Amino acid sequence: MAANVQDVIMLFGDSITQAGWAEDAFGARLANVYSRKLDVLNRGLSGYTTDWAIPVLEQCLATQQAQQHLPKVRLFVVWFGANDACIKPSPQHVPLPKFIENIKYMANLVQSAESAYYSPSTKIILITPPPINTHQRAADLASRDPPLALDRLFETTRQYAEGVKEAAAALKVAVVDVWTALWNAAGENEEALSRYMSDGLHLNPAGYTIVYEALIKAIAVEYPELHYENLQHVFPLWSDVDWTNPGPSVQKREA
Amino acid sequence: MAANVQDVIMLFGDSITQAGWAEDAFGARLANVYSRKLDVLNRGLSGYTTDWAIPVLEQCLATQQAQQHLPKVRLFVVWFGANDACIKPSPQHVPLPKFIENIKYMANLVQSAESAYYSPSTKIILITPPPINTHQRAADLASRDPPLALDRLFETTRQYAEGVKEAAAALKVAVVDVWTALWNAAGENEEALSRYMSDGLHLNPAGYTIVYEALIKAIAVEYPELHYENLQHVFPLWSDVDWTNPGPSVQKREA
Repeated sequence: MAANVQDVIMLFGDSITQAGWAEDAFGARLANVYSRKLDVLNRGLSGYTTDWAIPVLEQCLATQQAQQHLPKVRLFVVWFGANDACIKPSPQHVPLPKFIENIKYMANLVQSAESAYYSPSTKIILITPPPINTHQRAADLASRDPPLALDRLFETTRQYAEGVKEAAAALKVAVVDVWTALWNAAGENEEALSRYMSDGLHLNPAGYTIVYEALIKAIAVEYPELHYENLQHVFPLWSDVDWTNPGPSVQKREA
Repeated sequence: MAANVQDVIMLFGDSITQAGWAEDAFGARLANVYSRKLDVLNRGLSGYTTDWAIPVLEQCLATQQAQQHLPKVRLFVVWFGANDACIKPSPQHVPLPKFIENIKYMANLVQSAESAYYSPSTKIILITPPPINTHQRAADLASRDPPLALDRLFETTRQYAEGVKEAAAALKVAVVDVWTALWNAAGENEEALSRYMSDGLHLNPAGYTIVYEALIKAIAVEYPELHYENLQHVFPLWSDVDWTNPGPSVQKREA
């Protein structure tokens, strides 16, 4: 069994989070810079909307009663919208007001003193969904067998990204506006988004690099105490080990 | 707080494990293929020898009393030897018999019914240290300010790799012979090891690819029940979610 050694960063989201450990993607890069400090947990769920993810989240967070035995979530990153913004009649469609309400509900699970999962030391970052490149997405769906119709629209997903920012402002938590970061990187040209996207919906390594850099910057600005450079190693550097009697010198510390 | 949702693969070793989340390295790749199945924990400790790592391991494993609250270690990967094989007078030098004894001690912490950390369901894989490319290593050390003398020898590290295989045979656990895999890949030519090593001691992406592929093969052959293709997602695929009443359909399952 794995003892409770390192606190964690929990990345909670859809397929764009789940794929965050692929080549050069943001989860693997976070895990690398936070090594020996915080574990980075992949809690990405391909295809899930906020409606379906809430009952999962209630299993991924520890109740107050169980918290004493378990690692603290020092940073909770919530990244949804890419599926909720599907247009009707997709079963993934979640109306925008309900989506915003769901994002707030997730944050309140850890922020609200009335919640069974209340964790006042947990910092929260919301991430906006990436823009849709409808040219790339339509071509990808048309190439399938049988061909599929376009299921997401540029303007609709933009509104869901705005909804995430609205939720963050109401919750007074940090937001990483990936939608705008990618849109600006593409020169506000929808077709040019293909430089950052694999299929018009998901990100390629260049897209994840923008996400990683924006997330690290948000941590540095909003929660500097959680920046990896401001955390110590849980177990000391080897040059600090007492070579003649190592045990007492390698006791774990909070990062 | 993070609830106990996914069981884990624990990678325990030295800097070559710690760097396993760098570009294309084996830890990040494992985390990617095991996403939504098992969490992969980086418990690499740069510079540590087995002597110093044992008191750390006794903090990373849960005692039997604490195990009920914590994720199971389904696979425990132990990869040391690169530092223990340093030659005298390095403080990292651990004599070969003591090194072998330490590796057995680590495995016995989970295998022995008398151990406070006994975990009979945990599978173990030992990994042999990579060969030393003394040409590359000597050049790297000579380039430092002040220059350093060669601290590891090709033949010595080969003996420590043999020691890991000896321990694995005695313990009846699987072994991944990275020493031999890299040596063969280099055509049994020490200088050609530079294709797989960054500095004659640590691995580059090509070297980690060999490690990753050998480790996945060992899992497939020795512990097929733990191969990622034979594990189910802890939370169901989105196509299996009950869209009208998601809660009961997304209860966590053992992977």
